[in-house]
Amino acid sequence: MRAILFDVFGTLVDWRSSLIEQFQALERELGGTLPCVELTDRWRQQYKPAMDRVRNGQAPWQHLDQLHRQSLEALAGEFGLALDEALLQRITGFWHRLRPWPDTLAGMHALKADYWLAALSNGNTALMLDVARHAGLPWDMLLCADLFGHYKPDPQVYLGACRLLDLPPQEVMLCAAHNYDLKAARALGLKTAFIARPLEYGPGQSQDLAAEQDWDLIASDLLDLHRQLAASA
Amino acid sequence: MRAILFDVFGTLVDWRSSLIEQFQALERELGGTLPCVELTDRWRQQYKPAMDRVRNGQAPWQHLDQLHRQSLEALAGEFGLALDEALLQRITGFWHRLRPWPDTLAGMHALKADYWLAALSNGNTALMLDVARHAGLPWDMLLCADLFGHYKPDPQVYLGACRLLDLPPQEVMLCAAHNYDLKAARALGLKTAFIARPLEYGPGQSQDLAAEQDWDLIASDLLDLHRQLAASA
Repeated sequence: MRAILFDVFGTLVDWRSSLIEQFQALERELGGTLPCVELTDRWRQQYKPAMDRVRNGQAPWQHLDQLHRQSLEALAGEFGLALDEALLQRITGFWHRLRPWPDTLAGMHALKADYWLAALSNGNTALMLDVARHAGLPWDMLLCADLFGHYKPDPQVYLGACRLLDLPPQEVMLCAAHNYDLKAARALGLKTAFIARPLEYGPGQSQDLAAEQDWDLIASDLLDLHRQLAASA
Repeated sequence: MRAILFDVFGTLVDWRSSLIEQFQALERELGGTLPCVELTDRWRQQYKPAMDRVRNGQAPWQHLDQLHRQSLEALAGEFGLALDEALLQRITGFWHRLRPWPDTLAGMHALKADYWLAALSNGNTALMLDVARHAGLPWDMLLCADLFGHYKPDPQVYLGACRLLDLPPQEVMLCAAHNYDLKAARALGLKTAFIARPLEYGPGQSQDLAAEQDWDLIASDLLDLHRQLAASA
């Protein structure tokens, strides 16, 4: 095995707490009240349906910053918030500033000594580049949906990543906190590693609390993934 | 300006000395004699014609590792060298291990504080990833020919890079040691910075010894580029 691909939102960064905090900072700055938690959760709920409209051909190709912006406008209507252009842009940018989970940086640095590390994300390149700079993620490469014109779990994303890395799928492992993502990768011959992130969706999380298949590795965090890989090498 | 794209071979890394040294180490290991300098220079001479065959449609798309390998086989015939498969693979890999110029790392780290830094290279992603790891180049992103299915100076490469970075061309600067590359970038609206690398092709270099147009910046090395950008900010 030569390369590890990582899902980013949820697997490496805590998007939910990071967004809530940025909404709360904006609330203090504007001096009103914002439904910070509800906005965050409703926004993320529109993530999959928005990508699915692109995936099934109902909408033309648009990258994730564009989808986030459209969802935000709909959300503003839903919550009765008057957001001008500057605020819409600024809030869409919240997704560019996300905090890594406590084990993310140490785990990635440890893994990088032995493997190529690449993002495999439904975020677009410019978005993922900002996320990486903000969080300090030590990538070798960003492999984002806009390189392929497809969103995960479309096979073009996983196979396109292997092609660009010039590796057969069995030399590549996907590490993700989401079973659907690993399922698509396994079907194409990639190795799979599951890391549970039981707080990704907040205290009431009901999905992806555990591995739903016998993934090649099931780890408690990135440091544990590194230990397991080192032990099996 | 938000991003600086860098040509890599010659602009950031000294491919010629690095290849000659690796041929010399192989010569010592094999115990025979190898025309190390001639092999290096003849190999690089086949670089542009090989890409041009792809660019003008005489050959199907192939990435640079593949073109290097084909040129090496032709070269082995030309020099009467019997290279088995293992040696052909190993020597093709010489291009993955290239030394940065003395100013490259310090210059890139200084520039990275203010700008996104991305490779814009005719190398393929896997090759450029190895070059980056070997030399320690602190990239934000690799934008390589195989993302676009085109080689520089085809416009698809420069425009594809701007599209992936989500920036208009005037927010992007290309830094290169080659006038032809900057000419193509300027024609598409990118900003341009020339850095002379008068030893890239060895002591007899006759091309790209100086700027051939009034590029936006003309710098003696990357640290000078950083100084000039900081002074104009």
